Amino acid sequence: MEMKLLEERIMRDGQVRPGNVLKVDCFLNHQLDVELLDQIGAEFYRIFKEDGINKILTIEASGIAIACMTARHFNVPVVFAKKAKSKNIDGDVYTSTVHSYTYGRDYDITLAQKFLGPQDRVLILDDFLANGKAMNGLLDICRQAGASVGGIGICIEKGFQPGGAEIRAEGYKLASLAIVESMGDNGEICFREPEF
Amino acid sequence: MEMKLLEERIMRDGQVRPGNVLKVDCFLNHQLDVELLDQIGAEFYRIFKEDGINKILTIEASGIAIACMTARHFNVPVVFAKKAKSKNIDGDVYTSTVHSYTYGRDYDITLAQKFLGPQDRVLILDDFLANGKAMNGLLDICRQAGASVGGIGICIEKGFQPGGAEIRAEGYKLASLAIVESMGDNGEICFREPEF
Repeated sequence: MEMKLLEERIMRDGQVRPGNVLKVDCFLNHQLDVELLDQIGAEFYRIFKEDGINKILTIEASGIAIACMTARHFNVPVVFAKKAKSKNIDGDVYTSTVHSYTYGRDYDITLAQKFLGPQDRVLILDDFLANGKAMNGLLDICRQAGASVGGIGICIEKGFQPGGAEIRAEGYKLASLAIVESMGDNGEICFREPEF
Repeated sequence: MEMKLLEERIMRDGQVRPGNVLKVDCFLNHQLDVELLDQIGAEFYRIFKEDGINKILTIEASGIAIACMTARHFNVPVVFAKKAKSKNIDGDVYTSTVHSYTYGRDYDITLAQKFLGPQDRVLILDDFLANGKAMNGLLDICRQAGASVGGIGICIEKGFQPGGAEIRAEGYKLASLAIVESMGDNGEICFREPEF
């Protein structure tokens, strides 16, 4: 299924902000359009269903909804890396450090070791891919766990930032449903043709 | 549909930890069993479908999966209150302060004002209800927004802590799918019969 649906939604409801920020908070990561997310999930299933996926990995909080709606189609568990330290995480965890443009600082992500291991072949999902810092943190956790990465699915890639190119160069199967080629000061958004 | 399914899963996979902590991280809030979440969503729909719900409100991150799977049945948007301050929240927000047992400190929750208003009748969902601090924060945000609360749905209520009783005393329709009456040092979990 064409993901023109997501491009059209971005054109209709997305807002360009200074600093190359694309706000999609009214349908993707603050208010959630669950019907659109379900179609996104079906599209990720169409792209990755032959890749031997037995688990979906994401990061809180914006990735969770996407991961759940996709997991319904795959019928596999979701695990998500946590950003905040809580008293409730005991035992052994994988940890990686991420620099966040959104938060303007480094933060650690953690995943309980019991939830990821060499028997796992994951589909990593997230809402955005820009510089790739969060994604590199998730890939680092997969390496620590000995898990293989069957694919990476992104809703919106900022094609003018280096994360996507770097991940493709490393040989991962990366499918971005919408790739923003440029965002103008006048609010104009141009898309690149997606691969899948 | 009987939510004995959730009680049984808690008995099978839940772990009692010191300080009245019930860990359900392998199926509810770190690793997610999406099929179980879908059944939880169907159950919340069964209970609240006549209550005029036009939006589901929750809090990141553990509430998001539950909210999405429930929203599928209602066919309404999900909005979630955010815990961390990010550079990406501009404009007007509702704010409330919550004391967290999990994090051992106070934190603020925020919701963009454009996503909640007097036209909304919300179903508030979360994974746990214990002291009710997070829930009180969400109710405070509803009051600020002028939104009405059609119902409150909780997966696991700790019946030995005061949150549930207080919320019922305030007249809200509160449905908890599993109510833990007591948790023993030996790991034993006893349930109270749920209302709905």
